[in-house]
Amino acid sequence: MLTIHDFRTVVENYKIVFFDAFGVIKSYNGLIPGIIQTFDYLAETGKEYYIVTNDASRSPMQLAQTYHRMGFHAVQHDRIISSGMLAKEYLDLKVNDGIVAYLGTENSAHYIERSGLQALPVSAIDEGNIDQVNALVLLDDEGFDWFSDLNKTVNILRQRTIPAIVANTDNIYPVSGSNNVSIAIGGIATMVESIVGKRFIRFGKPDSQMFMFAYDLIREKRTISKKEILMVGDTLHTDIIGGNKFGLDTVLVLSGNTLPDDAETRIRSTGIVPTFVCEKAVV
Amino acid sequence: MLTIHDFRTVVENYKIVFFDAFGVIKSYNGLIPGIIQTFDYLAETGKEYYIVTNDASRSPMQLAQTYHRMGFHAVQHDRIISSGMLAKEYLDLKVNDGIVAYLGTENSAHYIERSGLQALPVSAIDEGNIDQVNALVLLDDEGFDWFSDLNKTVNILRQRTIPAIVANTDNIYPVSGSNNVSIAIGGIATMVESIVGKRFIRFGKPDSQMFMFAYDLIREKRTISKKEILMVGDTLHTDIIGGNKFGLDTVLVLSGNTLPDDAETRIRSTGIVPTFVCEKAVV
Amino acid sequence: MLTIHDFRTVVENYKIVFFDAFGVIKSYNGLIPGIIQTFDYLAETGKEYYIVTNDASRSPMQLAQTYHRMGFHAVQHDRIISSGMLAKEYLDLKVNDGIVAYLGTENSAHYIERSGLQALPVSAIDEGNIDQVNALVLLDDEGFDWFSDLNKTVNILRQRTIPAIVANTDNIYPVSGSNNVSIAIGGIATMVESIVGKRFIRFGKPDSQMFMFAYDLIREKRTISKKEILMVGDTLHTDIIGGNKFGLDTVLVLSGNTLPDDAETRIRSTGIVPTFVCEKAVV
Amino acid sequence: MLTIHDFRTVVENYKIVFFDAFGVIKSYNGLIPGIIQTFDYLAETGKEYYIVTNDASRSPMQLAQTYHRMGFHAVQHDRIISSGMLAKEYLDLKVNDGIVAYLGTENSAHYIERSGLQALPVSAIDEGNIDQVNALVLLDDEGFDWFSDLNKTVNILRQRTIPAIVANTDNIYPVSGSNNVSIAIGGIATMVESIVGKRFIRFGKPDSQMFMFAYDLIREKRTISKKEILMVGDTLHTDIIGGNKFGLDTVLVLSGNTLPDDAETRIRSTGIVPTFVCEKAVV
Repeated sequence: MLTIHDFRTVVENYKIVFFDAFGVIKSYNGLIPGIIQTFDYLAETGKEYYIVTNDASRSPMQLAQTYHRMGFHAVQHDRIISSGMLAKEYLDLKVNDGIVAYLGTENSAHYIERSGLQALPVSAIDEGNIDQVNALVLLDDEGFDWFSDLNKTVNILRQRTIPAIVANTDNIYPVSGSNNVSIAIGGIATMVESIVGKRFIRFGKPDSQMFMFAYDLIREKRTISKKEILMVGDTLHTDIIGGNKFGLDTVLVLSGNTLPDDAETRIRSTGIVPTFVCEKAVV
Repeated sequence: MLTIHDFRTVVENYKIVFFDAFGVIKSYNGLIPGIIQTFDYLAETGKEYYIVTNDASRSPMQLAQTYHRMGFHAVQHDRIISSGMLAKEYLDLKVNDGIVAYLGTENSAHYIERSGLQALPVSAIDEGNIDQVNALVLLDDEGFDWFSDLNKTVNILRQRTIPAIVANTDNIYPVSGSNNVSIAIGGIATMVESIVGKRFIRFGKPDSQMFMFAYDLIREKRTISKKEILMVGDTLHTDIIGGNKFGLDTVLVLSGNTLPDDAETRIRSTGIVPTFVCEKAVV
Repeated sequence: MLTIHDFRTVVENYKIVFFDAFGVIKSYNGLIPGIIQTFDYLAETGKEYYIVTNDASRSPMQLAQTYHRMGFHAVQHDRIISSGMLAKEYLDLKVNDGIVAYLGTENSAHYIERSGLQALPVSAIDEGNIDQVNALVLLDDEGFDWFSDLNKTVNILRQRTIPAIVANTDNIYPVSGSNNVSIAIGGIATMVESIVGKRFIRFGKPDSQMFMFAYDLIREKRTISKKEILMVGDTLHTDIIGGNKFGLDTVLVLSGNTLPDDAETRIRSTGIVPTFVCEKAVV
Repeated sequence: MLTIHDFRTVVENYKIVFFDAFGVIKSYNGLIPGIIQTFDYLAETGKEYYIVTNDASRSPMQLAQTYHRMGFHAVQHDRIISSGMLAKEYLDLKVNDGIVAYLGTENSAHYIERSGLQALPVSAIDEGNIDQVNALVLLDDEGFDWFSDLNKTVNILRQRTIPAIVANTDNIYPVSGSNNVSIAIGGIATMVESIVGKRFIRFGKPDSQMFMFAYDLIREKRTISKKEILMVGDTLHTDIIGGNKFGLDTVLVLSGNTLPDDAETRIRSTGIVPTFVCEKAVV
């Protein structure tokens, strides 16, 4: 039988807490009730937080603003680590010039705009400029026409030997309605990858680079051991196995993707074992 | 080194020839030059033909008409075996009543229309009728809005424990333009299947049922050995491995998916070995 | 909630019954209690049976004898359809001469011994005879040294462009002990296939050819509709989806791989829906 | 056409060089000819090196000794980063007590021996101690009986919900003989993982943690930018995509897994593009 732990009792033993966003802090309905008091508690007790999210749909600044608009003012943009930031770092280090074609909204394209690079939606690529395309980034499932732009994406990758970067590894995300979901860009990426037969570069949990990015930000300020960090998430295949592999203690919360009735079965069938299970991330 | 055989010399030794359609008989440009004389030769020498195609976009009758319009009058509709016919047989045997939801054009829906069943496009499914949906069929990549209807498909399959049938196993098909392709419904099906985590039922080559369907039509008329049948196709992963597995001798033609320069490498790397390789299916 | 049907009430409506062997007729403990009276009932009521099994470890004759030794005399060898028989048919039709290398026991090699072919265990292949090897067949998980012969198998398939045939698609099979299993040759085949990157030819349920083989035997004697055949199995991924796809009504029994407590969850999560669920195949 | 660069010209522009071991520094025949002068050149020009290897068969100290015995004295054990070290870090952080069962040689077990943990080969696990097994580590393909111990491994993972750690992600490794290979523990791990249906934790290139481990060692001593590091490897799927993803410039050498004749085709078909291609890592 699954033991359900009290979140406050668990969190007391750590100095730093990493939170997943969707299903932990917020849902499609808004904030998870009680999450504001959790962040107040962290501030009072001198614990640091980071939000580690597979969300490349907008910048950390814009993500922070969506929290502020919901009345959750404690969230600072420089404590948000998004998978889009890793895609950006990759482009900074590895792509010097030319066009970066993307699938996603204009907001998401923020991650690829910098001097030397021209961000163009896939729909704007044609025979006249395809030879200048030096990378293709899959950022978000919205902002483009699936039929014409996914077919175009396949053909760009057949013509050009360039890196294809996926800035969000999720397959689905929850939307309003009874247990409904939407296909995320990670699911689309897997289809395109298998059709073109090429290997894509994926950023996002469970990959260690997400955790390393946050860990490095902390270490710039002070010495820390991985034993002092707790990762809190609602998804076994991203948050929990990723946190475990990076060497962190992990909490599975039951306020998102993993339902209370399924938690035990899923842990046993996947072999992905969180250090603790809590109802939600609320003290 | 790959030996290229003369098609007429090969075909002389068989009584019945199975042809794949796309890349063998026709391309996006129209008929493969010389194919009409091949069928004339078959008629003169008393050899039977069947066209065995992963095409569920329209009925055998409609498929035959497209050949007739191109001046290729030898093709009879009752010699065309399409993967859609297997999907239809499945529905006949296994689904007695209710709604069959589909992705595809109205033409493709022909395969699911019969007494007792109501064919509705996925876009027409809502909370009022979802409980009557008893099967979902993926027929064609056109005729629906990818964004809204693929998301809806995922949610129908999350809510209903019903069979999902894929009537075309191809991932891509060639379109006009320099070596360009389109994503086929088989590629889309694989994405949806992996997202919902359920097992779909696939009809089409390389599955044996396609070959069996043609083989049964022949046996209704007379006794035949598999040794007397030749399968001709342009794709190793569907036509050739499927034909081989069913026990037929196989010809790989280089007029479609497999380019002359790649044939040897692909045969060696996949381990899928045709009995013969010919330039095209032209005598 | 899952409805459990009475097996006799279900079987009354069919003229022919296909049975899986392991988990339906027998277990590692011997016969499933009551199975003899089921076969008596079938004989009394004039219903035909076939045993359709992914077992290539010995010939139908030998398989029948193991039943006879357990006191189950009703089983006739010509009513047993094994995946090994399909491998044999493939070799008959497609491999004319040379050596067929195999992994398995000497008993299993029976399926590849015939005029014109020399059956040699993989361990007997060396630089002197490798050029005559024209096919490789994976028959059984016993009868060879895994370390040396699996490594040798990989290297044979890297050197020779020949068909690799898998005569049993199962990944595991139950052995005595508390819920223990053994790795089957199908699981080993998947590893070797992914390591050499070539496409293997697999015979066994859920593939239609297994069902077609039995169906053809029946049709040689008389006319039959698929609606008159019932497939009984304990495994969703082989017996049930295979039977469904072939167009048969299916019974999932809970005496083998699928445990009573898991049945409902597994049906819902895989989307593989049997026509009926029964406790066991006992009238 | 593929441009082949001169290794010395390339390496001049970097301060630190990461080397893969097998196929770059050594082969099954011994050292790659000329590699000693490469390391002399690095020492003379004040460039640092690290050896980043998916080899968990022995400790860095033992690995260094094998180089010394071949007359290659420049290699220091503290410059060798093995995937076994990451497995060790994982156990240090995440497994507090009990038995760690392993597949591999006694040498490889070095990575799991520390206070609080008891390292036992899988063959030594039985009903008396299985309840104390808190992790299972796959270290090496030698040192155990494949048949009995792989079957036992499957059953341990069916009975216990514990992490399974793979300390080497490679599928194969070259051995002497004409282009021959052996199955590596990574290939075995994939089979066991798919059979038990659980998610394993993998350490080794292309995973970022390997590169991060080396990168952290450097940063303890001084400030460095990823732009100043060059990764040299012979394998696209591990060295090159891993290095690329971590943000490093990469060199593909043609002295190991990737043959000169195949390099261009493989780069184009996988979409994994090294920054440079050199014949070998020799100045």
